[in-house]
Amino acid sequence: MTQEKRGLFITVEGPDGAGKSTQINYIKKYFEERGERALFTREPGGTKISEKIRTLILDKTNENMSYMTEALLYAAARAQLVEEIIEPTLASGNHVICDRFIDSSIAYQGYGRGLGMSVGIINGFAVGNCMPDLTILLKLDSDRGMDRIDSEGSKVRPKDRLESESMDFHREVYKGYLQLERDFPERIRGIDAGQSIEQVSDDIKAELDRLFEERNR
Amino acid sequence: MTQEKRGLFITVEGPDGAGKSTQINYIKKYFEERGERALFTREPGGTKISEKIRTLILDKTNENMSYMTEALLYAAARAQLVEEIIEPTLASGNHVICDRFIDSSIAYQGYGRGLGMSVGIINGFAVGNCMPDLTILLKLDSDRGMDRIDSEGSKVRPKDRLESESMDFHREVYKGYLQLERDFPERIRGIDAGQSIEQVSDDIKAELDRLFEERNR
Repeated sequence: MTQEKRGLFITVEGPDGAGKSTQINYIKKYFEERGERALFTREPGGTKISEKIRTLILDKTNENMSYMTEALLYAAARAQLVEEIIEPTLASGNHVICDRFIDSSIAYQGYGRGLGMSVGIINGFAVGNCMPDLTILLKLDSDRGMDRIDSEGSKVRPKDRLESESMDFHREVYKGYLQLERDFPERIRGIDAGQSIEQVSDDIKAELDRLFEERNR
Repeated sequence: MTQEKRGLFITVEGPDGAGKSTQINYIKKYFEERGERALFTREPGGTKISEKIRTLILDKTNENMSYMTEALLYAAARAQLVEEIIEPTLASGNHVICDRFIDSSIAYQGYGRGLGMSVGIINGFAVGNCMPDLTILLKLDSDRGMDRIDSEGSKVRPKDRLESESMDFHREVYKGYLQLERDFPERIRGIDAGQSIEQVSDDIKAELDRLFEERNR
């Protein structure tokens, strides 16, 4: 089967403050230790063109950006990342791990901004057939997530345009993630991000072990 | 009827080299002479955010931009222009004349790039209910259009990324315009742009007269 040759595509999702960066570092280590070649990338961004789009989206001076414009810019950055990086990498047999992907748009723009189904349809065109094999969803109640950003993040850097949104926005985003977890139980694996860092990593390890086992069966 | 208070929304379309800029100047004069307040804008662009997106799209160094990314960027610029400028202007009772709009995307990305129906759907989300009352389509065979660009335009400025495309691309774009004219005969009025400038302006005048007559009936 050609399926065995294609790389695995894994995305990491969750509300701000859920610890994605820390756990992506763990996933890096996991792949290194297995001797598996994996490309790590992030959204929005990951290509020269996508990074330019990222700059536009996150620029606080663009505060009157319409919600639909924002959603279309995320989709545009994603389409470029898929065509230029993700698809060729997977086709060459290497794995791809992406920090945020289509579920972020559905949660943040579809639910948080209230744009609804249009976001899923637009992003369906943006990604084509390139859907993740596994999505790790770090689940953390939005109030706790923003507390973490406030107490830790603000020492390091100022909040960007999306992090500065109201608590109501972040609650809607989280509701969206929980709905996605219910809608796609095979692909999206929710992990309690309120646990210790080590325990979260252990849970991720179990999911990755299972994925490789299925692949090598 | 509230319909009478809302401004008219007119778009001008056509392949490169069909003489849009010249005729838009004519339309400006027409509105001034009638004493009608009209806002003239262009696509992609027309707002601070849309102009930034325009810069990205037309930048020749972004030559590996995926077709879907390009289509989504045009739609993003359009969504911003609609929400920030076109809708509020029409709602205030003033008219809007736009140099290119949704039909350009369907012709250039849907037909020219071969992205098909997805472009219409994406742009449907981008513009919402804000569709033109009249679209003036300047019809000029794509071979003649590009001849004009080559002989006149190149003296003034270098061709941008889209104008530099192959003749096949421009032929497909033109096919798209002709199909749109057939699909929306009430909204889209084709005018032979191969005629003299004065004759084209006269034809446009007839369409505008008719539109105002209907509106004031």
